[in-house]
Amino acid sequence: MGSRIGAREIGLEIGNIETGRFNAITDVKGVGVGHSTIIRGDGALRVGEGPVRAGVTAIVPHQGNPFEQKVVAAVDVFNAYGKSVGLPQIMHTGVIETPILLTDTLNTWVVADALVSYMHEKYGVQATSMNPVVGETNGSFLNDSMGRHVRTPHVFEALDKARSVEGHGIVQEGNVGGGTPMSGFGFKGGIGTSSRKTDYFTLGVLVQLNCGRREDLRIDGVPAGKDLVEPMPKGVEAGNSIMIIFATNLGLDSRQLWRVAKRVVWGVARVGHYGGTGSGDFTIGFTTGDKSVEEMLDELRRSGGEDARMTQNEGYLNSVFRAAIEATEEAVLNALFKAETLRGRDGNTREAVPLDRVKQILQKYNRL
Amino acid sequence: MGSRIGAREIGLEIGNIETGRFNAITDVKGVGVGHSTIIRGDGALRVGEGPVRAGVTAIVPHQGNPFEQKVVAAVDVFNAYGKSVGLPQIMHTGVIETPILLTDTLNTWVVADALVSYMHEKYGVQATSMNPVVGETNGSFLNDSMGRHVRTPHVFEALDKARSVEGHGIVQEGNVGGGTPMSGFGFKGGIGTSSRKTDYFTLGVLVQLNCGRREDLRIDGVPAGKDLVEPMPKGVEAGNSIMIIFATNLGLDSRQLWRVAKRVVWGVARVGHYGGTGSGDFTIGFTTGDKSVEEMLDELRRSGGEDARMTQNEGYLNSVFRAAIEATEEAVLNALFKAETLRGRDGNTREAVPLDRVKQILQKYNRL
Amino acid sequence: MGSRIGAREIGLEIGNIETGRFNAITDVKGVGVGHSTIIRGDGALRVGEGPVRAGVTAIVPHQGNPFEQKVVAAVDVFNAYGKSVGLPQIMHTGVIETPILLTDTLNTWVVADALVSYMHEKYGVQATSMNPVVGETNGSFLNDSMGRHVRTPHVFEALDKARSVEGHGIVQEGNVGGGTPMSGFGFKGGIGTSSRKTDYFTLGVLVQLNCGRREDLRIDGVPAGKDLVEPMPKGVEAGNSIMIIFATNLGLDSRQLWRVAKRVVWGVARVGHYGGTGSGDFTIGFTTGDKSVEEMLDELRRSGGEDARMTQNEGYLNSVFRAAIEATEEAVLNALFKAETLRGRDGNTREAVPLDRVKQILQKYNRL
Amino acid sequence: MGSRIGAREIGLEIGNIETGRFNAITDVKGVGVGHSTIIRGDGALRVGEGPVRAGVTAIVPHQGNPFEQKVVAAVDVFNAYGKSVGLPQIMHTGVIETPILLTDTLNTWVVADALVSYMHEKYGVQATSMNPVVGETNGSFLNDSMGRHVRTPHVFEALDKARSVEGHGIVQEGNVGGGTPMSGFGFKGGIGTSSRKTDYFTLGVLVQLNCGRREDLRIDGVPAGKDLVEPMPKGVEAGNSIMIIFATNLGLDSRQLWRVAKRVVWGVARVGHYGGTGSGDFTIGFTTGDKSVEEMLDELRRSGGEDARMTQNEGYLNSVFRAAIEATEEAVLNALFKAETLRGRDGNTREAVPLDRVKQILQKYNRL
Repeated sequence: MGSRIGAREIGLEIGNIETGRFNAITDVKGVGVGHSTIIRGDGALRVGEGPVRAGVTAIVPHQGNPFEQKVVAAVDVFNAYGKSVGLPQIMHTGVIETPILLTDTLNTWVVADALVSYMHEKYGVQATSMNPVVGETNGSFLNDSMGRHVRTPHVFEALDKARSVEGHGIVQEGNVGGGTPMSGFGFKGGIGTSSRKTDYFTLGVLVQLNCGRREDLRIDGVPAGKDLVEPMPKGVEAGNSIMIIFATNLGLDSRQLWRVAKRVVWGVARVGHYGGTGSGDFTIGFTTGDKSVEEMLDELRRSGGEDARMTQNEGYLNSVFRAAIEATEEAVLNALFKAETLRGRDGNTREAVPLDRVKQILQKYNRL
Repeated sequence: MGSRIGAREIGLEIGNIETGRFNAITDVKGVGVGHSTIIRGDGALRVGEGPVRAGVTAIVPHQGNPFEQKVVAAVDVFNAYGKSVGLPQIMHTGVIETPILLTDTLNTWVVADALVSYMHEKYGVQATSMNPVVGETNGSFLNDSMGRHVRTPHVFEALDKARSVEGHGIVQEGNVGGGTPMSGFGFKGGIGTSSRKTDYFTLGVLVQLNCGRREDLRIDGVPAGKDLVEPMPKGVEAGNSIMIIFATNLGLDSRQLWRVAKRVVWGVARVGHYGGTGSGDFTIGFTTGDKSVEEMLDELRRSGGEDARMTQNEGYLNSVFRAAIEATEEAVLNALFKAETLRGRDGNTREAVPLDRVKQILQKYNRL
Repeated sequence: MGSRIGAREIGLEIGNIETGRFNAITDVKGVGVGHSTIIRGDGALRVGEGPVRAGVTAIVPHQGNPFEQKVVAAVDVFNAYGKSVGLPQIMHTGVIETPILLTDTLNTWVVADALVSYMHEKYGVQATSMNPVVGETNGSFLNDSMGRHVRTPHVFEALDKARSVEGHGIVQEGNVGGGTPMSGFGFKGGIGTSSRKTDYFTLGVLVQLNCGRREDLRIDGVPAGKDLVEPMPKGVEAGNSIMIIFATNLGLDSRQLWRVAKRVVWGVARVGHYGGTGSGDFTIGFTTGDKSVEEMLDELRRSGGEDARMTQNEGYLNSVFRAAIEATEEAVLNALFKAETLRGRDGNTREAVPLDRVKQILQKYNRL
Repeated sequence: MGSRIGAREIGLEIGNIETGRFNAITDVKGVGVGHSTIIRGDGALRVGEGPVRAGVTAIVPHQGNPFEQKVVAAVDVFNAYGKSVGLPQIMHTGVIETPILLTDTLNTWVVADALVSYMHEKYGVQATSMNPVVGETNGSFLNDSMGRHVRTPHVFEALDKARSVEGHGIVQEGNVGGGTPMSGFGFKGGIGTSSRKTDYFTLGVLVQLNCGRREDLRIDGVPAGKDLVEPMPKGVEAGNSIMIIFATNLGLDSRQLWRVAKRVVWGVARVGHYGGTGSGDFTIGFTTGDKSVEEMLDELRRSGGEDARMTQNEGYLNSVFRAAIEATEEAVLNALFKAETLRGRDGNTREAVPLDRVKQILQKYNRL
């Protein structure tokens, strides 16, 4: 995907906080990402045969056994026209005990079941109760979705990769894993990621972008969608969805993470999403807990960086909120910019957003 | 299951409102129930082989196609140590678009996937987005739960039965369907049902009972659990769970159904459940909408049965609340009373509650 | 109120856990309770003049300044036909920063304003933002409620008492403070309290009881309401309300306290409340944090009292859940048993529940 | 306030949907707005004396008695560091039964009490239970907030005006009513309003703006805050708050209004708000119900304007969502653009945003 570049490479700086090394969710130490991508067949849709444009993306919260070392977590459900699995238990227990998987809608439950198998077989968890976490968006414009082509080996592949060395560095974006058949603002969408890093915490976001209408697209506030009239998409509905995963190393409790989670979707709002009635807009966040709030505040005091606003009413959360919104806005743009044109079932094609045209528009509005 | 009798047959009258004809959720016209029960093997647990004590219970909301004629619905999550599938979408859209299935915990996702297959194949729904609804409790004391033995044909069997003539009358209770391996208050539990019928609405409840500690058991307020010391259960944990489904023919909107749903679990509270930290206590309710609130109020006016309190502040809901709590309390007792002693994996045995002893206790407390 | 006795003195033992020294919310060290009771005038209602049967009850979370030392807190809203003030902020910040006040419905906002004055004047808090917490139930059957007779001096009196030596021991129950004009199950209701104490935590509950229909009353499971037909109440509606405050010394976080809060109302369900559509059923809980969960678990380990279930999935919460339900059930009964017959506006009279008759009924059902 | 102009007059067109006649919440027929503004004294703060920069804004949902004709309503709480009164009851009953008032934080409860008086005295409601609805933001940078200077006559004045002919046309914006002392993005803020009108519904929004950091300000996507460095504000904290009221004539039910309410705050997100930890971000919406969904769909069918997406999954809500976000974004800008420089207590001054400079910036980015 060499010709495709992210928002930074184009020259945009979304927000004010610096990115981490990889500008990816993997900047949160321990977090790994792996994709299994299935692109098979061409031509007319034959349910159960293809064409297949699907996959699964896995996020592991740390290098250990997530069932033994559960991570503190929280959920925000903005609009729940979506089938996400495992959310209610997170809301009550405040923890996640498995990796998180993303896929195409109708594969959700097979993928959840395969995740249980993986927990049994690869993590060695002998438990009769387990809360697999799976999110989805609907890739049926390109994919034989009713065929439900994602199977246990794909899930295992994504999880194995997420746990490998490769899974802990640069994250592949665009038409990969769960994002393979997805759309965004009438262009090709898919997986995007970004991160923010301050003196005292790192926060990373990964999205599976499948939402937005063309005319609503705003690139760093520029109403680019109105100028990007060619090629006009077909088959774009107001609904569609986005799955957002965020991770931080700051040891917040689940109520605090929930407050962060509620802000995350604002990063999508800024790109022009309206949260249509048929949209599944879910945010799942967790912390590796590598740095406790107490440690952070101690450091700030020692460095003289602390002020009253930082500690009053959990004021240190404000930077976390901002980091979360900024990283989400950028992750959405990265998904859009990195994805390549893809043809799927019945000749349906989603064009990549033309990056040269994007640059022209940003120049027109004096933003580059 | 001839020797096992329900709470009414023992002589108890839970609450003040009359039951419907079948004293079952099927008293709400159109609602059907079907079970697929798997009892196979004996002896030591061999994961993947058995012994199997599992199954699936299906509830269809009406005789039509539930995807085409979605039913207005609501959800209450009391304690979410549970894996229920499909709840967030119900909360936002206020409708259910598939039948509801109940099963053993680790079968949840295969069952959800099979429900999608059924929607495609048997209801002819050609949709790439669909929100299957599945609830579960944990039957691993008797069942090879890690073996995940419930498969697509079991799901199809339960659904076919729920749509047959048989599914619309008397409902089998106890060790059937999803309730096959379940426990209750240290005795054998499983499926139970009950209903309430007034001049202006019918409401039915079906539970999959798998919760409660022995010493907490209250039968219509009598602290029976303290006297029922023999045989003492092993392997009873404070957690465990209960799934509750209710149906009514009164055309409430989803906010109103949600208010009913919040009361339902009180019927379980009255039997002595404490809602342990590891408990999955979910209520899902829907209305067939056969009688609108306006029709109901018109009838009441004509019959002179209406008074001011009935219409002020949705006062007509009060009878619905009471019916829901009463029917739930009775459904829990029916699950307990109808279930028979069952031996499962590793020789683990759950004894049926001894009904003669129950009668003696009720007589001791002057309640029969 | 010498002739009125609580549930324990009658011979009932609600649940299994021991009570604290005072069997009151004040068993949680630091918690203080004060009442200001206004009983003035008689005869026909003249709005703005009386008769007045009103008051305010104050609960202070500890002996310090609650704005400086905020307490971790949580809220459960079961049915929100009620005007409680301050709840949304507790849900997001997880803390309470003022004492909690209880009063008659239409006095709620004057009482909240007076609480702000008290924070300024008596606690010396110079803040332009502050979240006063006030709960209410409707005492208009006896009280000139539209007259809104509770004023700043009453609020100051209740708060001063709650902070005095007197406020930290035995708690007055029945027709006192905010409970002065309230009803319960067609009898006189009002303030009631109870506590539970284990090796590792104390939990106390205080209720302002104003709910329940006569025929639904269950005393420790005995359907006493059906036998207590004389005198039949007038002016009892299905709605009405209950305010529940609980406190513990165990240092739970707000998510955990919320899980406790959700159970509390089950104690009311067991006495026969149905949560009518016009009911305001709110629970507010806090912890003084005197004993951290880590300390508790250390103690349990040292004493050999810990087992696996205690620490798995926050299993130590189960005893807290049970304590909360038991103490609530008993606090409701205490409110009912301690309240004395009171005549109010327009000659309206609420009779005290006849305790001799209660004993006879409990004997009839072999429960004493 | 002649020299101050709104976003439209500057040349901005926020979003794609047309405004109503007044570009105000009063475009929803029947909705009235009235302000009572208190500007008194100057110089050093003397608590209880002044200087006073405060007031109250009233919104009446229709011209009738709101207690007799309750309006269907819903609430979204984005971040609840705020004292809003009356929200829990709206969430459960789905209706509002009084006008809505906006004021300065510590006046909240006196204002709520005065609203009850108004209901008794002016609307003639003889009720002992009533749910007044009041929102607030914190004006203490300019105002003697601890002095709590808003009194019953101010509340009556605002309500009388909202019910007058004047209250049903053009709405005064900026330093009026509850918005008098408020700030926005380090400039003077206050009251702002806007509306959207389609063939089939009207929706209006009114905000009390008191949130945002200077550097975050985005005007229709342009990062204007970074260029608007002079004069830099003092006393701006990350927190602060916004109250948002919306009204529509489309007869949605409360679940649907709630879905709209969740989107509304996105309009604020687009102007650059981050929802700080100390922010009270509440949305309250209602419908006059003048046009039922059925009527609307009939009209659409007759006009040929209906398509499948309009009726599937409540697809007609999508336009309502978009209208709500657009009108909110514009109402925030109007509050900012209409407010004039104001000096308050201790010489504290909030400068009006310099509109000439704003135009230059918009021109620089080629947006005018």
